Amino acid sequence: MRIVVLAGGIGGARFLRGLKKAAPDADITVIGNTGDDIHLFGLKVCPDLDTVMYTLGGGINEEQGWGRTDETFKVKEELAAYGVGPEWFGLGDRDFATHIVRTQMLGAGYPLSAVTQALCERWQPGVRLIPMSDDRVETHVAVTVDGEQKAVHFQEYWVRLRASVDAHAIVPVGAEQAKPAPGVLEAIAEADVVLFPPSNPVVSVGTILAVPGIREAIADADVPVVGLSPIVGDAPVRGMADKVLAAVGVETSAAAVAEHYGSGLLDGWLVDSVDAGVVERVESAGIRCRAIPLMMTDVDAAAEMARQALALASEVRA
Amino acid sequence: MRIVVLAGGIGGARFLRGLKKAAPDADITVIGNTGDDIHLFGLKVCPDLDTVMYTLGGGINEEQGWGRTDETFKVKEELAAYGVGPEWFGLGDRDFATHIVRTQMLGAGYPLSAVTQALCERWQPGVRLIPMSDDRVETHVAVTVDGEQKAVHFQEYWVRLRASVDAHAIVPVGAEQAKPAPGVLEAIAEADVVLFPPSNPVVSVGTILAVPGIREAIADADVPVVGLSPIVGDAPVRGMADKVLAAVGVETSAAAVAEHYGSGLLDGWLVDSVDAGVVERVESAGIRCRAIPLMMTDVDAAAEMARQALALASEVRA
Repeated sequence: MRIVVLAGGIGGARFLRGLKKAAPDADITVIGNTGDDIHLFGLKVCPDLDTVMYTLGGGINEEQGWGRTDETFKVKEELAAYGVGPEWFGLGDRDFATHIVRTQMLGAGYPLSAVTQALCERWQPGVRLIPMSDDRVETHVAVTVDGEQKAVHFQEYWVRLRASVDAHAIVPVGAEQAKPAPGVLEAIAEADVVLFPPSNPVVSVGTILAVPGIREAIADADVPVVGLSPIVGDAPVRGMADKVLAAVGVETSAAAVAEHYGSGLLDGWLVDSVDAGVVERVESAGIRCRAIPLMMTDVDAAAEMARQALALASEVRA
Repeated sequence: MRIVVLAGGIGGARFLRGLKKAAPDADITVIGNTGDDIHLFGLKVCPDLDTVMYTLGGGINEEQGWGRTDETFKVKEELAAYGVGPEWFGLGDRDFATHIVRTQMLGAGYPLSAVTQALCERWQPGVRLIPMSDDRVETHVAVTVDGEQKAVHFQEYWVRLRASVDAHAIVPVGAEQAKPAPGVLEAIAEADVVLFPPSNPVVSVGTILAVPGIREAIADADVPVVGLSPIVGDAPVRGMADKVLAAVGVETSAAAVAEHYGSGLLDGWLVDSVDAGVVERVESAGIRCRAIPLMMTDVDAAAEMARQALALASEVRA
């Protein structure tokens, strides 16, 4: 079975770990969000790609969900001693090496997709990880700080400001001109199922869908598309998805996110058991819906969610 | 008193520490060798400039004479795990930060001299440290390895091969086209004395002198030029200077190095007490010579050497 997954960071990575357990023989292609990539200290940092790679490759810091296990912060300390920031972005020494290798390869002329493949040769994530695009796309967030409206990089909004101010708009700068990376459209065309993990529908899955050609390829592919709600009850499972949903005029609810994707894209939608009451609303929007436990408390829980997603895909295919 | 010092790495840095103690009120400008600069992992590494900066700024690893104190090697371990080398060059985590800041600033368009000044704002070396040139100069060494003649970067010759093969030639690639960095010629023109510390006469001081204009400025300046022999007895005090002296046809002796610089450049020369027998030979070449203890066993010993060098400068000036 060929499965394509559109993944952001922590939620996507943990779901993928479950999916690998649920479908050990599946051929999994992950289309990774690069809209939250950022240049720090002259280095190219790809937080979502790295979170997927480290999580599936056994190098992730389990507690925080991103960054490396057994990490130290000497380089960052020294950069701060030089007065070089930002200090709000927590790059560890082990993590720095990934960005150094990536930046060196990009500088040598390799596209990000080839660089990602090279990095994965070490990590052996057990999936094919492809960035959504080799072109630069950078998610910016329009905010008002101290009465002044300005656009900040998504990482600055998310990590530095902790989404503490309202977002007026989310703009994936460069997306309109971006092309899907080699292999992305082919993987979608050849897929037996496409899954949207419980990743952020705006700044993770939404950014991937903003690359011209990807949304259309998924909508046109004659395969089931099944998603899992990142909202449980009236709150995001993790992160601050409510902030960016508000920016695009979507209420923070499992049903509203399904309607945001729409039946043109989505065939099936899993909501948490506490949201069983919205199943009817989602189905009336033309999307098959089931309520199951959606908390990825451990790998087994994530694997069960993946099984349910694949089961729902079979159901809509039938 | 305005003192200009042409410095390589460890020997130059330790001499400078002594000079600062011997002449605490002096205005010291250090013209640093950049011929051993190397690009590693996409980062610009300036070993000699950093050794001077770390030594005078209190960050040096005293035992090895280069690199940072309290150093760790996580980044390097990780790079090796990615299969990215070279492994023979020992960059520590703290040291990496310096190269990251430097590379970022160079990438932003600042010349190396401005970058060095910015780095020194943290380290406060108590001297003005200027790279010999903002232009790229890279010392290459012609060697024969396994019957095949080839040119290797100086660092590869020195660090990886440990100078274990004969050097046929030493070529400061790019030197002919290089211009002295801003401030270099001015510092020489305004100097009261110019000192050559016991640095390598070929790949350290020699490379600085290879930048068109610097040798001439020193020769033309109406100030005493005094050097200290890096050779004691018939061996280099440290490093493998004999290997590179042989490549330029100079015997490994305190007298031969003085003659190599020549009386057109050098006014005074200090040799070690064990080399008292060569004083006459050096003086017959037109260079005032004294024999004193030249082993920099501690800062006080280096300070005494600096005092003797300044005394010899006064003597030749009189």
